Amino acid sequence: MAGPEWQSLEQCLEKHLPPDDLGEVKRVLYGKQTRNLDLPRKALETASERNFELKGYAFGAAQEQQRCPQIVRVGLVQNRIPLPTSAPVAEQVSALHKRIEAIVEVAAMCGVNIICFQEAWNMPFAFCTREKLPWTEFAESAEDGLTTRFCQKRHNMVVVSPILERDRDHGGVLWNTAVVISNSGLVMGKTRKNHIPRSTYYMEGNLGHPVFQTQFGRIAVNICYGRHHPLNWLMYSLNGAEIIFNPSATIGELSESMWPIEARNAAIANHCFTCAINREHYPNEFTSGDGKKAHHDLGYFYGSSYVAAPDGSRTPGLSRNQDGLLVTELNLNLCQQINDFWTFKMTGRLEMYARELAEAVKPNYSPNIVKEDLVPRPSSG
Amino acid sequence: MAGPEWQSLEQCLEKHLPPDDLGEVKRVLYGKQTRNLDLPRKALETASERNFELKGYAFGAAQEQQRCPQIVRVGLVQNRIPLPTSAPVAEQVSALHKRIEAIVEVAAMCGVNIICFQEAWNMPFAFCTREKLPWTEFAESAEDGLTTRFCQKRHNMVVVSPILERDRDHGGVLWNTAVVISNSGLVMGKTRKNHIPRSTYYMEGNLGHPVFQTQFGRIAVNICYGRHHPLNWLMYSLNGAEIIFNPSATIGELSESMWPIEARNAAIANHCFTCAINREHYPNEFTSGDGKKAHHDLGYFYGSSYVAAPDGSRTPGLSRNQDGLLVTELNLNLCQQINDFWTFKMTGRLEMYARELAEAVKPNYSPNIVKEDLVPRPSSG
Repeated sequence: MAGPEWQSLEQCLEKHLPPDDLGEVKRVLYGKQTRNLDLPRKALETASERNFELKGYAFGAAQEQQRCPQIVRVGLVQNRIPLPTSAPVAEQVSALHKRIEAIVEVAAMCGVNIICFQEAWNMPFAFCTREKLPWTEFAESAEDGLTTRFCQKRHNMVVVSPILERDRDHGGVLWNTAVVISNSGLVMGKTRKNHIPRSTYYMEGNLGHPVFQTQFGRIAVNICYGRHHPLNWLMYSLNGAEIIFNPSATIGELSESMWPIEARNAAIANHCFTCAINREHYPNEFTSGDGKKAHHDLGYFYGSSYVAAPDGSRTPGLSRNQDGLLVTELNLNLCQQINDFWTFKMTGRLEMYARELAEAVKPNYSPNIVKEDLVPRPSSG
Repeated sequence: MAGPEWQSLEQCLEKHLPPDDLGEVKRVLYGKQTRNLDLPRKALETASERNFELKGYAFGAAQEQQRCPQIVRVGLVQNRIPLPTSAPVAEQVSALHKRIEAIVEVAAMCGVNIICFQEAWNMPFAFCTREKLPWTEFAESAEDGLTTRFCQKRHNMVVVSPILERDRDHGGVLWNTAVVISNSGLVMGKTRKNHIPRSTYYMEGNLGHPVFQTQFGRIAVNICYGRHHPLNWLMYSLNGAEIIFNPSATIGELSESMWPIEARNAAIANHCFTCAINREHYPNEFTSGDGKKAHHDLGYFYGSSYVAAPDGSRTPGLSRNQDGLLVTELNLNLCQQINDFWTFKMTGRLEMYARELAEAVKPNYSPNIVKEDLVPRPSSG
């Protein structure tokens, strides 16, 4: 399995394929071609100085008579943790804020309207260790914690800030939460990870499927493991989301081939844009919180963040092995255009599924199975 | 956009990429590698003589102590129509039966246990014309029509036979139906296309989500456009399907980049195998049923049939431009293994979604939208 030496699928295909074949391969793999965004030279230079990848793409949409184009630029940030996990908690947080500030400044130069950071961006992704201290010390109030206040100082951008939340008003429990901050710096609200593969840190979210009506469009946040659950995407979409962010932290051999599939399928199935953000690998040892030996390998976080559109097309991914900012220009009109074209919402028969699901979850549900021994024998031969 | 001259993604990648890079590209694109099946030489020779592609792959699974491997071989058939659409209906049907017989015989040599044909395989895919005669004359009884009787003579194989059905017992209406015939030749039952983009030929299926317990595993059939609807796959899976067939007829630029995504996402999300079967292009004119000019271009049916596994891996696709038989060996134990590993069923919170969907379909549903003007201003600047 490839580690950091293998940069990305796209880089490999572009290196080896003749132009005609490359065109066909990209058509089958990525759908309708995205346009390259002309990013300011100053932004490209600054990204290079600050040692992160900067890429820009744009999805088009048909011209309409009755609506202006609804153009919005989203920024997806993937980054490694800057300090060793053995550094004092406050220093790690401060280094993360500084690193993200360096990236956000470039996003501002690129005209980004909505920016989203990776899952639990205010800390190392320590949850696989199952140790509590010092990791739980990274938890903050969603409403007025240090990281939320850091995000309120942004550059006329909506900020989606996924953090480990300490909920003081409800027994001081932890949540895996994303805070949404408006472009004027107000905390609009928060949303929580709805599906969890049994964590000892936090429970399934209890806030349902809120959608945030920002100045730049209606957005929702499907945190990490929720991307495996088509119903989770669906409910955000039914509540009106035009862009669904999926800040994630996923590793290794089993998930890397699923990564290009799930968020993209959700964009197709729900006639919306989806933004898949993965962490980026931290190659050093992962200190042990319990005084035992350090963890050498939590698995390889492979970056590869991308944006998928309702017409099934997608951007190339960021690298597997570099900090990066992916700037993508969307025309939100494409959502309704594809909704009218493919009509999956109109043909979805949700009443039927609401009934069938209500039956299927009953303890005494009897699945609809046709058995061969119940098939009448034919009367002849 | 590529027509018939571009054979397949896989053929292109294999031609141009160096072995190491090819390995990484396949890992990211296809997941854990499938094994090539050793097919009998006689079968390969016969396929070659009869001018269709024959490919074989196998998915593995971990050894278990308490269960034997549950090995089953599925066959996916994609084919063009053998006669011009202007030939008499009976001759066209007869030629289709003959062509499929030639392919099924080879499937038998390869030890196929369950075979599935393409959507409405007993006719040209004429529904885009919106003309009624002669196309509706291809409709048959699901229980004892000519095509069902043809399928009852198979070689100890379960046959999934998607046809245009004439339902004499209910007003003589038409349905887009798949008939399931057991390996002993009994008609086990039928299942109908649940989601339809407004056809003037047939309505949405009224048979729910039946699963057929065959000698070789529990199977279901999600016909064509139903693959766009994650809830449709989900209900088949909740009823116990281990393999879901998706016989399809899909064309052109818009769907080709979605084709590798949707059935594969369903295999991942539902911990089951999915079998995506597309038609194969018919390059000649498509006769007009209404005495007007022939249709020159109904779009390019691009073949590319494939099988996806619950671990997110998939086989390469058949060619875009040839008749073909894809033989794939599955170990059904992989379904439960992945169910236990990824636990999407356990973490699915279906009770919550049953409630939320029941609300969302109400005419007076008020979506959960957080608006900025409802956010209280901060007390200090």
